[in-house]
Amino acid sequence: MRVDVISNVEKACKDDFLNKTVIVIDVLRATSTMITALANGSTNIIPVETVREAWGLKKSDEIMGGERYCQRIAGFQLGNSPLEYLEPTIKGKTIILTTTNGSRAIRKSLQAAHILAGAMLNASSCAQLALEFQKDIVIVCAGTRGKFSLEDGLCAGLIVCEMMKIDQQSLQLNDFGYAMLYAHQYRKHQMSETLLHCANGRKLSKLGFREDVLFCSRVNLFSTVPIMQDQSLWPFPSSKTWTPSYN
Amino acid sequence: MRVDVISNVEKACKDDFLNKTVIVIDVLRATSTMITALANGSTNIIPVETVREAWGLKKSDEIMGGERYCQRIAGFQLGNSPLEYLEPTIKGKTIILTTTNGSRAIRKSLQAAHILAGAMLNASSCAQLALEFQKDIVIVCAGTRGKFSLEDGLCAGLIVCEMMKIDQQSLQLNDFGYAMLYAHQYRKHQMSETLLHCANGRKLSKLGFREDVLFCSRVNLFSTVPIMQDQSLWPFPSSKTWTPSYN
Repeated sequence: MRVDVISNVEKACKDDFLNKTVIVIDVLRATSTMITALANGSTNIIPVETVREAWGLKKSDEIMGGERYCQRIAGFQLGNSPLEYLEPTIKGKTIILTTTNGSRAIRKSLQAAHILAGAMLNASSCAQLALEFQKDIVIVCAGTRGKFSLEDGLCAGLIVCEMMKIDQQSLQLNDFGYAMLYAHQYRKHQMSETLLHCANGRKLSKLGFREDVLFCSRVNLFSTVPIMQDQSLWPFPSSKTWTPSYN
Repeated sequence: MRVDVISNVEKACKDDFLNKTVIVIDVLRATSTMITALANGSTNIIPVETVREAWGLKKSDEIMGGERYCQRIAGFQLGNSPLEYLEPTIKGKTIILTTTNGSRAIRKSLQAAHILAGAMLNASSCAQLALEFQKDIVIVCAGTRGKFSLEDGLCAGLIVCEMMKIDQQSLQLNDFGYAMLYAHQYRKHQMSETLLHCANGRKLSKLGFREDVLFCSRVNLFSTVPIMQDQSLWPFPSSKTWTPSYN
Protein backbone atom coordinates (compact mmCIF):
# COMPACT_ATOMS: atom_id res chain seq x y z
CA MET A 1 0.00 0.00 0.00
CA ARG A 2 1.39 3.42 -0.96
CA VAL A 3 1.38 6.25 1.58
CA ASP A 4 2.20 9.66 0.11
CA VAL A 5 2.54 12.72 2.31
CA ILE A 6 2.19 16.08 0.52
CA SER A 7 3.48 19.32 1.94
CA ASN A 8 0.54 21.68 1.41
CA VAL A 9 -2.88 21.77 -0.13
CA GLU A 10 -1.76 23.85 -3.14
CA LYS A 11 0.41 20.91 -4.23
CA ALA A 12 -2.65 18.70 -4.31
CA CYS A 13 -4.27 17.98 -7.64
CA LYS A 14 -7.86 16.71 -7.44
CA ASP A 15 -7.10 13.73 -9.69
CA ASP A 16 -4.31 12.59 -7.36
CA PHE A 17 -7.00 11.53 -4.92
CA LEU A 18 -9.07 9.29 -7.21
CA ASN A 19 -9.87 5.98 -5.51
CA LYS A 20 -7.60 6.81 -2.56
CA THR A 21 -8.06 7.40 1.13
CA VAL A 22 -7.15 10.99 1.98
CA ILE A 23 -6.25 12.21 5.45
CA VAL A 24 -6.44 15.99 5.77
CA ILE A 25 -4.37 17.53 8.57
CA ASP A 26 -4.74 21.08 9.86
CA VAL A 27 -3.50 20.78 13.43
CA LEU A 28 -3.76 24.52 14.21
CA ARG A 29 -6.69 24.39 14.34
CA ALA A 30 -9.37 23.19 11.89
CA THR A 31 -9.06 19.41 12.09
CA SER A 32 -8.35 19.54 15.84
CA THR A 33 -11.59 21.50 16.22
CA MET A 34 -13.56 19.03 14.05
CA ILE A 35 -12.32 16.05 16.03
CA THR A 36 -13.09 17.75 19.34
CA ALA A 37 -16.60 18.71 18.25
CA LEU A 38 -17.52 15.24 17.00
CA ALA A 39 -15.91 13.53 20.01
CA ASN A 40 -18.01 15.81 22.19
CA GLY A 41 -21.36 14.85 20.64
CA SER A 42 -21.87 17.15 17.67
CA THR A 43 -23.83 15.18 15.04
CA ASN A 44 -21.94 16.30 11.96
CA ILE A 45 -19.83 19.11 10.55
CA ILE A 46 -20.36 20.75 7.17
CA PRO A 47 -17.02 22.23 6.04
CA VAL A 48 -17.41 25.15 3.64
CA GLU A 49 -14.95 27.47 1.97
CA THR A 50 -16.65 30.86 2.20
CA VAL A 51 -18.64 32.79 4.78
CA ARG A 52 -21.39 33.41 2.22
CA GLU A 53 -21.66 29.66 1.59
CA ALA A 54 -21.93 29.10 5.35
CA TRP A 55 -24.85 31.53 5.69
CA GLY A 56 -26.51 29.98 2.65
CA LEU A 57 -26.57 26.55 4.31
CA LYS A 58 -28.01 27.70 7.63
CA LYS A 59 -31.61 26.56 8.00
CA SER A 60 -32.58 26.40 11.67
CA ASP A 61 -30.50 25.37 14.65
CA GLU A 62 -27.15 24.62 13.03
CA ILE A 63 -24.23 26.20 14.84
CA MET A 64 -22.08 28.54 12.77
CA GLY A 65 -18.35 28.25 13.48
CA GLY A 66 -15.10 29.34 11.92
CA GLU A 67 -12.40 31.93 11.58
CA ARG A 68 -10.81 34.51 9.37
CA TYR A 69 -7.34 35.76 10.37
CA CYS A 70 -7.58 33.39 13.38
CA GLN A 71 -10.61 35.27 14.81
CA ARG A 72 -14.30 34.38 15.09
CA ILE A 73 -16.40 35.59 12.15
CA ALA A 74 -18.93 38.36 12.85
CA GLY A 75 -22.38 36.88 13.57
CA PHE A 76 -21.06 33.33 14.11
CA GLN A 77 -21.68 31.61 17.48
CA LEU A 78 -18.26 29.94 17.62
CA GLY A 79 -14.74 30.54 16.36
CA ASN A 80 -12.09 27.96 15.46
CA SER A 81 -10.88 27.17 18.97
CA PRO A 82 -11.24 23.46 19.83
CA LEU A 83 -11.81 24.44 23.46
CA GLU A 84 -15.08 26.15 22.50
CA TYR A 85 -16.30 22.83 21.11
CA LEU A 86 -15.98 21.08 24.47
CA GLU A 87 -19.07 22.96 25.65
CA PRO A 88 -22.34 20.98 26.11
CA THR A 89 -24.18 23.40 23.80
CA ILE A 90 -22.88 21.58 20.71
CA LYS A 91 -24.25 18.14 21.64
CA GLY A 92 -26.65 16.80 19.00
CA LYS A 93 -26.03 19.80 16.75
CA THR A 94 -24.86 20.21 13.18
CA ILE A 95 -21.96 22.64 12.82
CA ILE A 96 -21.32 24.67 9.69
CA LEU A 97 -17.57 25.36 9.78
CA THR A 98 -15.47 27.62 7.58
CA THR A 99 -11.73 27.96 8.13
CA THR A 100 -8.95 29.34 5.96
CA ASN A 101 -6.90 26.26 5.11
CA GLY A 102 -8.49 23.12 6.57
CA SER A 103 -11.92 23.46 4.96
CA ARG A 104 -10.32 24.19 1.59
CA ALA A 105 -8.13 21.12 1.84
CA ILE A 106 -11.15 18.94 2.56
CA ARG A 107 -13.14 20.38 -0.32
CA LYS A 108 -10.19 19.85 -2.65
CA SER A 109 -10.14 16.15 -1.68
CA LEU A 110 -13.70 15.38 -2.75
CA GLN A 111 -12.56 13.02 -5.55
CA ALA A 112 -11.17 10.65 -2.92
CA ALA A 113 -12.81 7.35 -2.03
CA HIS A 114 -12.61 8.25 1.67
CA ILE A 115 -11.75 11.52 3.40
CA LEU A 116 -10.68 11.57 7.04
CA ALA A 117 -9.70 14.49 9.27
CA GLY A 118 -6.53 13.87 11.25
CA ALA A 119 -4.65 15.72 13.97
CA MET A 120 -2.41 14.90 16.94
CA LEU A 121 -5.62 14.41 18.95
CA ASN A 122 -6.73 11.30 17.01
CA ALA A 123 -3.52 10.14 15.25
CA SER A 124 -3.70 6.48 16.26
CA SER A 125 -7.39 5.96 15.41
CA CYS A 126 -7.00 7.89 12.18
CA ALA A 127 -4.04 5.72 11.10
CA GLN A 128 -5.95 2.55 11.95
CA LEU A 129 -9.13 3.52 10.09
CA ALA A 130 -7.19 4.66 7.00
CA LEU A 131 -5.40 1.29 6.79
CA GLU A 132 -8.69 -0.58 7.15
CA PHE A 133 -9.91 0.84 3.84
CA GLN A 134 -7.11 -1.06 2.04
CA LYS A 135 -6.53 1.69 -0.51
CA ASP A 136 -3.50 3.85 -1.25
CA ILE A 137 -3.35 6.75 1.18
CA VAL A 138 -2.55 10.44 0.64
CA ILE A 139 -1.84 12.51 3.74
CA VAL A 140 -2.44 16.20 2.95
CA CYS A 141 -0.77 18.75 5.21
CA ALA A 142 -3.15 21.72 4.87
CA GLY A 143 -0.40 24.26 5.46
CA THR A 144 -0.98 28.00 5.62
CA ARG A 145 -1.81 29.97 2.47
CA GLY A 146 0.04 27.50 0.27
CA LYS A 147 3.06 27.14 2.53
CA PHE A 148 4.19 24.21 4.62
CA SER A 149 3.31 24.35 8.31
CA LEU A 150 5.55 22.45 10.73
CA GLU A 151 2.72 21.23 12.98
CA ASP A 152 0.94 19.56 10.05
CA GLY A 153 4.16 17.91 8.89
CA LEU A 154 4.97 16.58 12.36
CA CYS A 155 1.42 15.24 12.66
CA ALA A 156 1.76 13.51 9.28
CA GLY A 157 4.95 11.92 10.64
CA LEU A 158 3.07 10.84 13.78
CA ILE A 159 0.25 9.26 11.75
CA VAL A 160 2.79 7.44 9.54
CA CYS A 161 4.49 6.23 12.72
CA GLU A 162 1.14 4.92 14.03
CA MET A 163 0.53 3.18 10.69
CA MET A 164 3.92 1.51 10.88
CA LYS A 165 3.08 0.10 14.31
CA ILE A 166 0.19 -1.72 12.62
CA ASP A 167 1.83 -2.65 9.31
CA GLN A 168 5.52 -1.92 8.77
CA GLN A 169 6.04 -4.44 5.98
CA SER A 170 3.72 -3.43 3.18
CA LEU A 171 3.72 0.38 3.44
CA GLN A 172 5.59 2.26 0.71
CA LEU A 173 6.27 5.79 1.85
CA ASN A 174 7.32 8.70 -0.38
CA ASP A 175 10.45 10.76 0.36
CA PHE A 176 8.47 13.59 1.95
CA GLY A 177 6.73 11.07 4.20
CA TYR A 178 10.10 9.77 5.40
CA ALA A 179 11.28 13.31 6.11
CA MET A 180 8.17 13.98 8.21
CA LEU A 181 8.51 10.64 10.00
CA TYR A 182 12.12 11.44 10.93
CA ALA A 183 11.24 14.98 12.05
CA HIS A 184 8.43 13.59 14.22
CA GLN A 185 10.71 10.98 15.76
CA TYR A 186 13.22 13.66 16.68
CA ARG A 187 10.66 15.95 18.33
CA LYS A 188 8.03 13.54 19.67
CA HIS A 189 8.95 14.11 23.29
CA GLN A 190 8.78 17.92 22.93
CA MET A 191 5.52 18.20 21.01
CA SER A 192 3.94 21.09 22.92
CA GLU A 193 7.18 23.15 22.94
CA THR A 194 7.57 22.53 19.21
CA LEU A 195 4.02 23.60 18.43
CA LEU A 196 4.36 26.73 20.56
CA HIS A 197 7.56 27.57 18.68
CA CYS A 198 6.41 27.04 15.05
CA ALA A 199 5.10 29.96 12.96
CA ASN A 200 1.39 29.31 13.58
CA GLY A 201 1.98 28.49 17.25
CA ARG A 202 3.73 31.81 17.81
CA LYS A 203 1.02 33.70 15.94
CA LEU A 204 -1.81 32.04 17.87
CA SER A 205 -0.06 32.55 21.19
CA LYS A 206 0.32 36.26 20.45
CA LEU A 207 -3.41 36.45 19.68
CA GLY A 208 -4.30 34.86 23.02
CA PHE A 209 -4.81 31.26 21.87
CA ARG A 210 -1.85 29.65 23.69
CA GLU A 211 -4.17 27.15 25.40
CA ASP A 212 -5.46 26.06 21.98
CA VAL A 213 -1.91 25.30 20.86
CA LEU A 214 -1.25 23.24 23.98
CA PHE A 215 -4.55 21.37 23.57
CA CYS A 216 -3.83 20.63 19.88
CA SER A 217 -0.43 19.15 20.78
CA ARG A 218 -2.00 16.38 22.88
CA VAL A 219 -1.51 12.99 21.21
CA ASN A 220 -4.33 10.43 20.97
CA LEU A 221 -6.68 12.21 23.36
CA PHE A 222 -9.68 11.09 21.28
CA SER A 223 -10.53 7.95 19.32
CA THR A 224 -13.03 9.79 17.09
CA VAL A 225 -12.19 10.13 13.39
CA PRO A 226 -14.23 12.61 11.32
CA ILE A 227 -15.13 10.93 8.02
CA MET A 228 -16.71 12.62 5.01
CA GLN A 229 -20.00 11.46 3.56
CA ASP A 230 -22.65 13.50 1.72
CA GLN A 231 -20.78 16.82 2.15
CA SER A 232 -20.54 16.35 5.92
CA LEU A 233 -17.98 15.02 8.35
CA TRP A 234 -19.44 12.36 10.67
CA PRO A 235 -17.87 10.71 13.69
CA PHE A 236 -16.32 7.28 13.42
CA PRO A 237 -16.98 5.17 15.43
CA SER A 238 -20.40 6.22 14.31
CA SER A 239 -23.28 7.45 16.42
CA LYS A 240 -26.39 5.26 16.53
CA THR A 241 -28.11 7.24 13.82
CA TRP A 242 -25.49 6.74 11.13
CA THR A 243 -23.56 3.80 9.73
CA PRO A 244 -20.84 4.43 7.19
CA SER A 245 -20.86 2.33 4.03
CA TYR A 246 -17.22 1.56 3.34
CA ASN A 247 -16.53 -0.02 0.00
CA MET B 1 19.25 36.89 9.42
CA ARG B 2 16.46 34.85 7.79
CA VAL B 3 17.17 31.34 6.55
CA ASP B 4 14.38 29.86 4.38
CA VAL B 5 14.55 26.29 3.13
CA ILE B 6 12.31 25.51 0.14
CA SER B 7 11.30 22.00 -0.80
CA ASN B 8 11.93 21.94 -4.55
CA VAL B 9 13.00 24.18 -7.37
CA GLU B 10 9.49 24.49 -8.83
CA LYS B 11 8.45 26.31 -5.63
CA ALA B 12 11.14 28.88 -6.25
CA CYS B 13 10.13 32.20 -7.73
CA LYS B 14 13.00 34.18 -9.26
CA ASP B 15 12.09 37.32 -7.33
CA ASP B 16 12.34 35.46 -4.02
CA PHE B 17 16.08 35.45 -4.50
CA LEU B 18 16.66 39.18 -5.00
CA ASN B 19 19.54 40.42 -2.85
CA LYS B 20 19.82 37.08 -1.07
CA THR B 21 22.40 34.35 -0.79
CA VAL B 22 21.10 31.16 -2.39
CA ILE B 23 22.45 27.70 -1.67
CA VAL B 24 21.40 25.15 -4.28
CA ILE B 25 21.44 21.51 -3.17
CA ASP B 26 21.26 18.52 -5.50
CA VAL B 27 23.03 15.82 -3.48
CA LEU B 28 22.34 13.01 -6.00
CA ARG B 29 24.31 14.09 -7.87
CA ALA B 30 24.78 17.49 -9.55
CA THR B 31 26.12 19.64 -6.72
CA SER B 32 28.18 16.74 -5.32
CA THR B 33 29.77 16.43 -8.75
CA MET B 34 30.43 20.18 -9.02
CA ILE B 35 32.11 20.27 -5.60
CA THR B 36 34.23 17.21 -6.39
CA ALA B 37 35.35 18.62 -9.74
CA LEU B 38 36.36 22.03 -8.35
CA ALA B 39 38.03 20.48 -5.29
CA ASN B 40 39.99 18.31 -7.69
CA GLY B 41 41.40 21.17 -9.75
CA SER B 42 38.85 21.95 -12.43
CA THR B 43 39.03 25.69 -13.17
CA ASN B 44 35.31 26.38 -13.45
CA ILE B 45 31.98 24.79 -14.29
CA ILE B 46 29.41 26.25 -16.66
CA PRO B 47 25.98 24.86 -15.68
CA VAL B 48 23.52 24.78 -18.57
CA GLU B 49 19.97 23.54 -18.90
CA THR B 50 19.95 21.86 -22.32
CA VAL B 51 22.25 19.59 -24.29
CA ARG B 52 22.01 21.95 -27.27
CA GLU B 53 23.14 24.86 -25.08
CA ALA B 54 26.07 22.76 -23.87
CA TRP B 55 27.24 22.02 -27.44
CA GLY B 56 26.81 25.70 -28.34
CA LEU B 57 29.25 26.76 -25.62
CA LYS B 58 31.99 24.30 -26.49
CA LYS B 59 34.93 26.08 -28.08
CA SER B 60 38.11 24.04 -27.65
CA ASP B 61 39.22 21.90 -24.73
CA GLU B 62 36.28 22.26 -22.37
CA ILE B 63 35.07 18.97 -20.95
CA MET B 64 31.44 18.11 -21.62
CA GLY B 65 29.67 16.45 -18.70
CA GLY B 66 26.16 15.65 -17.62
CA GLU B 67 23.28 13.23 -17.65
CA ARG B 68 19.79 12.53 -18.87
CA TYR B 69 17.84 9.80 -17.07
CA CYS B 70 20.93 9.33 -14.83
CA GLN B 71 23.11 8.27 -17.80
CA ARG B 72 25.97 9.99 -19.65
CA ILE B 73 24.85 11.97 -22.70
CA ALA B 74 25.90 10.65 -26.12
CA GLY B 75 29.11 12.37 -27.26
CA PHE B 76 29.97 13.78 -23.82
CA GLN B 77 33.27 12.80 -22.18
CA LEU B 78 31.82 12.52 -18.69
CA GLY B 79 28.51 11.72 -17.01
CA ASN B 80 27.21 13.02 -13.69
CA SER B 81 29.10 10.69 -11.38
CA PRO B 82 31.29 12.58 -8.89
CA LEU B 83 33.77 9.71 -8.96
CA GLU B 84 34.54 10.47 -12.63
CA TYR B 85 35.60 13.97 -11.59
CA LEU B 86 38.31 12.65 -9.27
CA GLU B 87 40.40 11.79 -12.35
CA PRO B 88 43.50 13.93 -13.11
CA THR B 89 42.18 14.63 -16.62
CA ILE B 90 39.92 17.41 -15.33
CA LYS B 91 42.68 19.47 -13.69
CA GLY B 92 42.90 22.96 -15.12
CA LYS B 93 39.87 22.37 -17.33
CA THR B 94 36.54 24.13 -17.77
CA ILE B 95 33.57 21.77 -17.52
CA ILE B 96 30.27 22.40 -19.29
CA LEU B 97 27.73 20.52 -17.19
CA THR B 98 24.07 19.83 -17.87
CA THR B 99 21.96 17.87 -15.39
CA THR B 100 18.21 17.46 -15.02
CA ASN B 101 17.48 19.25 -11.75
CA GLY B 102 20.62 20.83 -10.30
CA SER B 103 21.58 22.96 -13.32
CA ARG B 104 17.99 24.20 -13.63
CA ALA B 105 17.90 25.18 -9.97
CA ILE B 106 21.10 27.17 -10.36
CA ARG B 107 19.87 28.95 -13.47
CA LYS B 108 16.61 29.80 -11.71
CA SER B 109 18.59 31.47 -8.91
CA LEU B 110 20.40 33.98 -11.10
CA GLN B 111 18.64 36.97 -9.47
CA ALA B 112 20.42 36.18 -6.20
CA ALA B 113 23.28 38.27 -4.85
CA HIS B 114 25.34 35.11 -4.34
CA ILE B 115 24.79 31.54 -5.51
CA LEU B 116 26.59 28.64 -3.85
CA ALA B 117 26.42 24.92 -4.56
CA GLY B 118 25.98 22.81 -1.44
CA ALA B 119 25.99 19.10 -0.67
CA MET B 120 26.88 16.79 2.20
CA LEU B 121 30.46 16.89 0.88
CA ASN B 122 30.99 20.59 1.71
CA ALA B 123 28.20 21.36 4.21
CA SER B 124 30.32 23.05 6.85
CA SER B 125 32.28 25.31 4.46
CA CYS B 126 29.11 26.15 2.55
CA ALA B 127 27.30 27.18 5.75
CA GLN B 128 30.24 29.31 6.84
CA LEU B 129 30.63 31.11 3.51
CA ALA B 130 26.88 31.79 3.23
CA LEU B 131 26.84 33.42 6.67
CA GLU B 132 29.84 35.59 5.80
CA PHE B 133 27.84 37.38 3.12
CA GLN B 134 25.53 38.77 5.84
CA LYS B 135 22.40 38.56 3.70
CA ASP B 136 19.20 36.56 4.08
CA ILE B 137 19.70 33.00 2.87
CA VAL B 138 17.48 30.74 0.77
CA ILE B 139 18.38 27.06 0.67
CA VAL B 140 16.88 25.47 -2.44
CA CYS B 141 16.42 21.71 -2.45
CA ALA B 142 16.60 20.93 -6.17
CA GLY B 143 14.34 17.88 -5.86
CA THR B 144 13.45 15.63 -8.77
CA ARG B 145 11.09 16.78 -11.51
CA GLY B 146 9.31 19.18 -9.18
CA LYS B 147 9.09 16.79 -6.25
CA PHE B 148 10.88 16.84 -2.94
CA SER B 149 13.91 14.54 -2.63
CA LEU B 150 14.85 13.30 0.83
CA GLU B 151 18.61 13.57 0.33
CA ASP B 152 18.35 17.28 -0.54
CA GLY B 153 16.14 17.95 2.48
CA LEU B 154 18.48 16.13 4.87
CA CYS B 155 21.41 18.07 3.43
CA ALA B 156 19.52 21.35 3.94
CA GLY B 157 19.02 20.28 7.57
CA LEU B 158 22.74 19.50 7.85
CA ILE B 159 23.72 22.91 6.46
CA VAL B 160 21.29 24.66 8.83
CA CYS B 161 22.82 22.64 11.66
CA GLU B 162 26.31 23.80 10.63
CA MET B 163 25.06 27.41 10.50
CA MET B 164 23.65 27.09 14.00
CA LYS B 165 27.04 25.96 15.30
CA ILE B 166 28.38 29.33 14.11
CA ASP B 167 25.42 31.58 14.99
CA GLN B 168 22.46 30.12 16.84
CA GLN B 169 21.13 33.42 18.17
CA SER B 170 20.33 35.56 15.15
CA LEU B 171 19.12 32.95 12.63
CA GLN B 172 15.37 32.92 11.90
CA LEU B 173 14.42 29.66 10.26
CA ASN B 174 11.16 28.94 8.41
CA ASP B 175 8.93 25.97 9.33
CA PHE B 176 10.24 23.83 6.49
CA GLY B 177 13.79 24.54 7.61
CA TYR B 178 12.97 23.31 11.13
CA ALA B 179 11.41 20.15 9.71
CA MET B 180 14.56 19.44 7.69
CA LEU B 181 16.80 20.22 10.68
CA TYR B 182 14.85 17.76 12.85
CA ALA B 183 14.87 15.07 10.14
CA HIS B 184 18.64 15.50 9.75
CA GLN B 185 19.22 15.29 13.49
CA TYR B 186 17.27 12.03 13.64
CA ARG B 187 19.18 10.39 10.77
CA LYS B 188 22.63 11.98 10.96
CA HIS B 189 24.32 8.80 12.17
CA GLN B 190 22.78 6.70 9.37
CA MET B 191 23.43 9.01 6.44
CA SER B 192 24.67 6.45 3.92
CA GLU B 193 21.88 3.95 4.74
CA THR B 194 19.31 6.74 4.42
CA LEU B 195 20.64 7.88 1.06
CA LEU B 196 20.73 4.32 -0.27
CA HIS B 197 17.11 3.90 0.85
CA CYS B 198 15.55 7.12 -0.54
CA ALA B 199 13.88 7.17 -3.98
CA ASN B 200 16.89 8.51 -5.92
CA GLY B 201 19.31 6.32 -3.96
CA ARG B 202 17.36 3.19 -4.87
CA LYS B 203 17.13 4.25 -8.51
CA LEU B 204 20.85 5.03 -8.80
CA SER B 205 21.82 1.80 -7.06
CA LYS B 206 19.72 -0.20 -9.53
CA LEU B 207 21.47 1.58 -12.40
CA GLY B 208 24.91 0.64 -11.02
CA PHE B 209 25.74 3.90 -9.23
CA ARG B 210 25.71 2.60 -5.63
CA GLU B 211 29.27 3.87 -5.07
CA ASP B 212 28.14 7.36 -6.13
CA VAL B 213 25.42 7.32 -3.48
CA LEU B 214 27.89 6.27 -0.79
CA PHE B 215 30.37 8.93 -1.90
CA CYS B 216 27.69 11.66 -1.88
CA SER B 217 26.70 10.75 1.68
CA ARG B 218 30.14 11.66 3.07
CA VAL B 219 29.92 14.76 5.23
CA ASN B 220 32.49 17.58 4.98
CA LEU B 221 34.94 15.66 2.83
CA PHE B 222 35.84 18.88 0.99
CA SER B 223 36.18 22.52 2.00
CA THR B 224 35.59 23.79 -1.56
CA VAL B 225 32.40 25.78 -2.20
CA PRO B 226 31.36 26.37 -5.83
CA ILE B 227 30.29 30.01 -6.20
CA MET B 228 28.62 31.55 -9.23
CA GLN B 229 30.14 34.46 -11.08
CA ASP B 230 29.79 35.40 -14.76
CA GLN B 231 27.69 32.32 -15.60
CA SER B 232 30.28 29.97 -14.12
CA LEU B 233 30.84 28.23 -10.82
CA TRP B 234 34.29 28.87 -9.41
CA PRO B 235 35.97 27.29 -6.41
CA PHE B 236 36.07 29.06 -3.07
CA PRO B 237 38.64 29.27 -1.56
CA SER B 238 39.65 30.63 -4.92
CA SER B 239 42.41 29.43 -7.19
CA LYS B 240 45.28 31.86 -7.83
CA THR B 241 43.79 33.08 -11.06
CA TRP B 242 40.50 34.30 -9.61
CA THR B 243 39.46 36.46 -6.69
CA PRO B 244 35.78 36.77 -5.89
CA SER B 245 34.37 40.24 -5.32
CA TYR B 246 32.07 39.92 -2.34
CA ASN B 247 30.06 42.98 -1.49
